[in-house]
Amino acid sequence: MSKHTSTHIDPALVAGNRRTMAGYAAQHFAWTCDKGVATITLNRPERKNPLTFESYAELRDVFAQLRYATDVHAVVLQGAGGNFCSGGDVHEIIGPLMQLAMPELLMFTRMTGDLVKNMRACPQPVIAAIDGICAGAGAIMAMASDLRLGTARSKTAFLFNRVGLAGCDMGACAMLPRIIGQGRASEWLLTGRSIGGDEAERSGFFNRVVLPEALSEQAQILAAELASGPTFANGLTKTMLHQEWSMSVDQAIEAEAQTQALCMMTEDFNRAYEAFVAKQKPVFQGN
Amino acid sequence: MSKHTSTHIDPALVAGNRRTMAGYAAQHFAWTCDKGVATITLNRPERKNPLTFESYAELRDVFAQLRYATDVHAVVLQGAGGNFCSGGDVHEIIGPLMQLAMPELLMFTRMTGDLVKNMRACPQPVIAAIDGICAGAGAIMAMASDLRLGTARSKTAFLFNRVGLAGCDMGACAMLPRIIGQGRASEWLLTGRSIGGDEAERSGFFNRVVLPEALSEQAQILAAELASGPTFANGLTKTMLHQEWSMSVDQAIEAEAQTQALCMMTEDFNRAYEAFVAKQKPVFQGN
Amino acid sequence: MSKHTSTHIDPALVAGNRRTMAGYAAQHFAWTCDKGVATITLNRPERKNPLTFESYAELRDVFAQLRYATDVHAVVLQGAGGNFCSGGDVHEIIGPLMQLAMPELLMFTRMTGDLVKNMRACPQPVIAAIDGICAGAGAIMAMASDLRLGTARSKTAFLFNRVGLAGCDMGACAMLPRIIGQGRASEWLLTGRSIGGDEAERSGFFNRVVLPEALSEQAQILAAELASGPTFANGLTKTMLHQEWSMSVDQAIEAEAQTQALCMMTEDFNRAYEAFVAKQKPVFQGN
Repeated sequence: MSKHTSTHIDPALVAGNRRTMAGYAAQHFAWTCDKGVATITLNRPERKNPLTFESYAELRDVFAQLRYATDVHAVVLQGAGGNFCSGGDVHEIIGPLMQLAMPELLMFTRMTGDLVKNMRACPQPVIAAIDGICAGAGAIMAMASDLRLGTARSKTAFLFNRVGLAGCDMGACAMLPRIIGQGRASEWLLTGRSIGGDEAERSGFFNRVVLPEALSEQAQILAAELASGPTFANGLTKTMLHQEWSMSVDQAIEAEAQTQALCMMTEDFNRAYEAFVAKQKPVFQGN
Repeated sequence: MSKHTSTHIDPALVAGNRRTMAGYAAQHFAWTCDKGVATITLNRPERKNPLTFESYAELRDVFAQLRYATDVHAVVLQGAGGNFCSGGDVHEIIGPLMQLAMPELLMFTRMTGDLVKNMRACPQPVIAAIDGICAGAGAIMAMASDLRLGTARSKTAFLFNRVGLAGCDMGACAMLPRIIGQGRASEWLLTGRSIGGDEAERSGFFNRVVLPEALSEQAQILAAELASGPTFANGLTKTMLHQEWSMSVDQAIEAEAQTQALCMMTEDFNRAYEAFVAKQKPVFQGN
Repeated sequence: MSKHTSTHIDPALVAGNRRTMAGYAAQHFAWTCDKGVATITLNRPERKNPLTFESYAELRDVFAQLRYATDVHAVVLQGAGGNFCSGGDVHEIIGPLMQLAMPELLMFTRMTGDLVKNMRACPQPVIAAIDGICAGAGAIMAMASDLRLGTARSKTAFLFNRVGLAGCDMGACAMLPRIIGQGRASEWLLTGRSIGGDEAERSGFFNRVVLPEALSEQAQILAAELASGPTFANGLTKTMLHQEWSMSVDQAIEAEAQTQALCMMTEDFNRAYEAFVAKQKPVFQGN
């Protein structure tokens, strides 16, 4: 039996704006939600799923809402039609940017940055499922995900310098080096070259390479596994991976002592123990 | 000839509490010490060497004492009976934790965190020799070591989420990403899955995979090599790897300029030079 | 057409001391400059290209000058005669260091550290082309470069502990772990052992292994590719990789939002867009 059982105060009240997201009506991508796994599918396959001002904004907002969602415990991010995402659309984004003055340009780069901030700030693990083209802002969204499954034929390219821009886009100069190492990241960002799936896996960018026909299913299986875990604790794992980014080791250890003590007050910790004693598999409930 | 020769003031006096550790009488693990190499063997092989409140505390204390030890220059950490460590014992640790209130839970997580802090703060390089099961707090002790030798058959699992807890345990969300990359660490911590020896090596977690029958000997050989090196300088290498964790590059370079200038005042630096000129192998003495 | 066209104020005036470097007359290494690619060749092949007090100082100064150079857009760093660099010369550096008091020792370690600071602060990507011996300060210069091409037969060794010193030299305890991971870096720095080219590539230290006879040409091809890119933006990629080293993720994202907005005001961004619309390859001019 646990020490603390949640009283029946409505959690939506506690968090101010906790909400359900399963029924979310997406405008600029496909959204499905099944058993706690939300799937975002970028779906303009005829253009290899580019981003537009509108889809950027909606992605930013949906990840912001996920922060308080009660019914989503893992997210799969994928593209339709054999490609992940071709990045910011040349005609619908790059062209208009040519007309903007500095304040509006900064509004745009802050909006794209906010998408990454929101992907990192929501408690749900985000699994990118990457086939085909994964370029520019598409590569950034893959990078900003927690886990990445890819195919051997996928092509990931941080191609900002190919369009005259810097590799420092949406946090890439901070995050990519921590994923694949500073030397590889320097090369990927300075050359903008295309990285095949096997190299992406060897470098630590992909967690695993799977067959194209298995990709979507494997992403769902992994997401379902995470969503059936102790999701409150998983959310804190993600939070602390973010939170400890630039702490010293000793600061991180104290931070984790507090976080883990907090997790030891949860029902899920108790459930795992009681299941172990009963020689059963625990059924976690995320509280 | 060197510039500065140590006068004969007792170093134990200078450090306040420098001490010898070779004769240390361990209570909750086996301790041996030979030619400057201390070997800690977790030895409850029938339970795959779990940790208890008592062994945690003693490990924390022994690494704290090593900080001032005069006669230990490298540490091997291993398990008896073909396994490294199965982590915190379910019956002797997890069960009792169910009964504790928050202040006591935090006392526990701070104690475990202090073990890692002390492993990082002592000047001796710690070599984990990992065979069989390396799970939970066992995986953390491996992670908190400086070097890791493992076997192909070993199974490393940061399985905290399997027991309803978060992956942020004892510094894992800070340290593991720096060892294997943020993407791999996110997966290992969020899934809690078991990692075989070859994957651990490819990911940068193991420095080398060796045969099970050679593991203990290889760890001793590596430890002896380190213990016969310039141990004062080696201790500063370890200190600075820790110290520069969250510095900027320019701060780190200034810090190292000071540290290396300091090392240039040692006898060992002089010994190496004189040996080179005499076409001999230097005999370092750690001062 | 772009929003902002540079007026014809002399850029040398704006920067205070912008300068041309193509005609630089090097004293202690070979210097060539062709189409924006400067090549520094350490050229005492009979001694495997060691460093001396003089060559250290000149390297420090040339990288400082590159910060303001108008005509160099990429740098290749290589050694003559089948070796990269054997590090600080035993007779010309280590011997004299034996005679120095602390203030002079710190002057020396700060000078060597300033070489690394200047390599990181100049906007040009530095490509190290590594064959044969790459030891001590030579390994540091390779590490401090942005990209590393190497040969299978090359031997990289951070051998400071072999000469009685600490591995924390010129920023190694900060930079090497970020390139190859904390576990591998701990081993390389604590043992000082020699790393072959294939291991260096697998570890993320080398970007690529090439045949010895192709090394110099491949380095030139890569440098020429970078020098023909949007060099102003590339310089900011390098700057931000440095700048974001110890920022939090959210700080890094805001920093990049500003940097990328800045790059969106450049002609090169406009050139890329217009070339795309015209189905042509962009010709970047670095402004």
